[in-house]
Amino acid sequence: MLATVIHAARDIRVEEVADPVILAPTDAIVRVVAACVCGSDLWPYRGITPTTKPRRIGHEFVGVVESVGDAVSRVRVGDFVIAPFYWCDMTCANCVNGVSTSCLNGGWWGAPDRHGDFVDGAQGEVVRVPLADGTLVATPGMPAPELIPSLLTLADVMGTGHHAAVSAGVGPGSTVVVVGDGAVGLCAVLAAKRLGASRVVAMSRHSDRQAIAREFGADDIIEERGAEGIARVKELFDGIGPDCVLECVGTAESMEQALKSARPGGMVGYVGVPNGGAELPIQLMFGSNVGANGGVAPVRNYVEELLPEVLDGRIAPGRVFDLEVPLAEAAEAYAAMDERRATKVLLRP
Amino acid sequence: MLATVIHAARDIRVEEVADPVILAPTDAIVRVVAACVCGSDLWPYRGITPTTKPRRIGHEFVGVVESVGDAVSRVRVGDFVIAPFYWCDMTCANCVNGVSTSCLNGGWWGAPDRHGDFVDGAQGEVVRVPLADGTLVATPGMPAPELIPSLLTLADVMGTGHHAAVSAGVGPGSTVVVVGDGAVGLCAVLAAKRLGASRVVAMSRHSDRQAIAREFGADDIIEERGAEGIARVKELFDGIGPDCVLECVGTAESMEQALKSARPGGMVGYVGVPNGGAELPIQLMFGSNVGANGGVAPVRNYVEELLPEVLDGRIAPGRVFDLEVPLAEAAEAYAAMDERRATKVLLRP
Repeated sequence: MLATVIHAARDIRVEEVADPVILAPTDAIVRVVAACVCGSDLWPYRGITPTTKPRRIGHEFVGVVESVGDAVSRVRVGDFVIAPFYWCDMTCANCVNGVSTSCLNGGWWGAPDRHGDFVDGAQGEVVRVPLADGTLVATPGMPAPELIPSLLTLADVMGTGHHAAVSAGVGPGSTVVVVGDGAVGLCAVLAAKRLGASRVVAMSRHSDRQAIAREFGADDIIEERGAEGIARVKELFDGIGPDCVLECVGTAESMEQALKSARPGGMVGYVGVPNGGAELPIQLMFGSNVGANGGVAPVRNYVEELLPEVLDGRIAPGRVFDLEVPLAEAAEAYAAMDERRATKVLLRP
Repeated sequence: MLATVIHAARDIRVEEVADPVILAPTDAIVRVVAACVCGSDLWPYRGITPTTKPRRIGHEFVGVVESVGDAVSRVRVGDFVIAPFYWCDMTCANCVNGVSTSCLNGGWWGAPDRHGDFVDGAQGEVVRVPLADGTLVATPGMPAPELIPSLLTLADVMGTGHHAAVSAGVGPGSTVVVVGDGAVGLCAVLAAKRLGASRVVAMSRHSDRQAIAREFGADDIIEERGAEGIARVKELFDGIGPDCVLECVGTAESMEQALKSARPGGMVGYVGVPNGGAELPIQLMFGSNVGANGGVAPVRNYVEELLPEVLDGRIAPGRVFDLEVPLAEAAEAYAAMDERRATKVLLRP
């Protein structure tokens, strides 16, 4: 079968690899219907995180179950399934606590599982899924093709935007600013509105992304960044700032902007993968009582809540995809995102 | 009148200073009944924060109102009042949001007010209180003498321990670990129990403090620190850790211990004044979804909730005082706390 392999910075190839087979009785084999490229895939693509040897890549997909191991009972052959960007059992203490990214038995695509067996990256034709009963969520019947992009966002970006909002404590009447206008930031706008925020401001300098933010419910757009951006935020919220800021980038600059934008006693929900090594400035946080909560989003825990609204069309987070390419052209998908020609690219095997 | 002045590290003197007078119509003059020495007063005492010129010190007191300005209406001459460790109007947006430490018109004892007039430190015979109607809370009638220590804790340590618990989201059924066995840490134990925690573990190596922690409701004591302490915590909580950790010290080591002790998805409520310049380790927090929330405690916002329970004896946070000295011997109060001969010292003018 074909799968994407990263060889080095800016060297993405689609290559023939061995077909996956069931290795554990809890495995399932899933034929990928749609996968995508994540903003975090750009870190190795750009060489910010090094690639020392060729490796499989990708961690978001939806597909159809082709076969299951003997111990799989919840997921069946023929099911259309959503896979989160990691695998998990959904029965351990951390999964039950809502933090399936810390599953005591889980792991990450494109890496060895606990038995030492390599687990496929998701940018391929077929994927071996460990702990299939926990990891996968089946839709009721085969979804309409136009729903595929939105279903795919439940594997990562929509669940991650939702996690930013949940982590910041967004609820009915909250005032919210979203830092970052990538796919996650846009989904965070949608998530905040969905949770009842009374006013959501998106920080964005790109007119195409601003348009999606508006469509997702943003009440205002701020184009400025840094000190000027913070001043504009304060201006919009009684001079003190919003209750919640959703940090969806992961740089030291974006985090500082988030922490300084929140009102005293406010909360920053952050989901941007931290890059650049900067730590959280505790003196600033201590003085203003602005908290920081979030992390790698336990999107699997959110699928049951969000899926019905995707299926009945109440939310359409798939709008974040603005380019679709065949799997064979994965290199172009990476280049398009790297060069900001696309917000989020969907890959079709 | 007499007041405490710090001249340099370990040089605390009680000196004759000018009697305070009403400078603004919102001022009150309060005769101090009891004041105390704060753990944070030890930073300048130990020279960790420099003292470049002699200055008044102290920020916790209770007393009786001697006179009020023309614009003061809520507080009356003769009232017994509790003063938080800062002053505030309780009407601005931040005060209304529950964060009176960020009052838009407030300030700190021993520093200039917004008119540039010096405001007294609290370790003296009489104190000028700005924004008296917001800052002060009067008790119903004159309290019994044995209640004075507990009432005094509402000026800082009990409200601060409560803030740690509130910031960490402690509620009915929460599992809690408290890092720090100073007066604030002990009050945090009491606060967590009061808020309904199902199990509270105090980390303490001092038998006298362990005894108070037990009295305040601690279910278990852990004496170990660092990696060993964290391992003991995990052991007590299903191998994953407690929901909430209350950080009541303020060093890089105690914060790291707190962040590593919490279960994935847990929350650290921190109130220890950050010292040593270490920032919050975002990679650790991101991977485990452990949040950090808290800061300088808005104790004024908590007085109405805690005061009735002090008055009717349901809580007795004044137990943290284990030494009482006359104001004239303030130097001994500092030395006793510095040398850990006392947990918390009460000063009587």
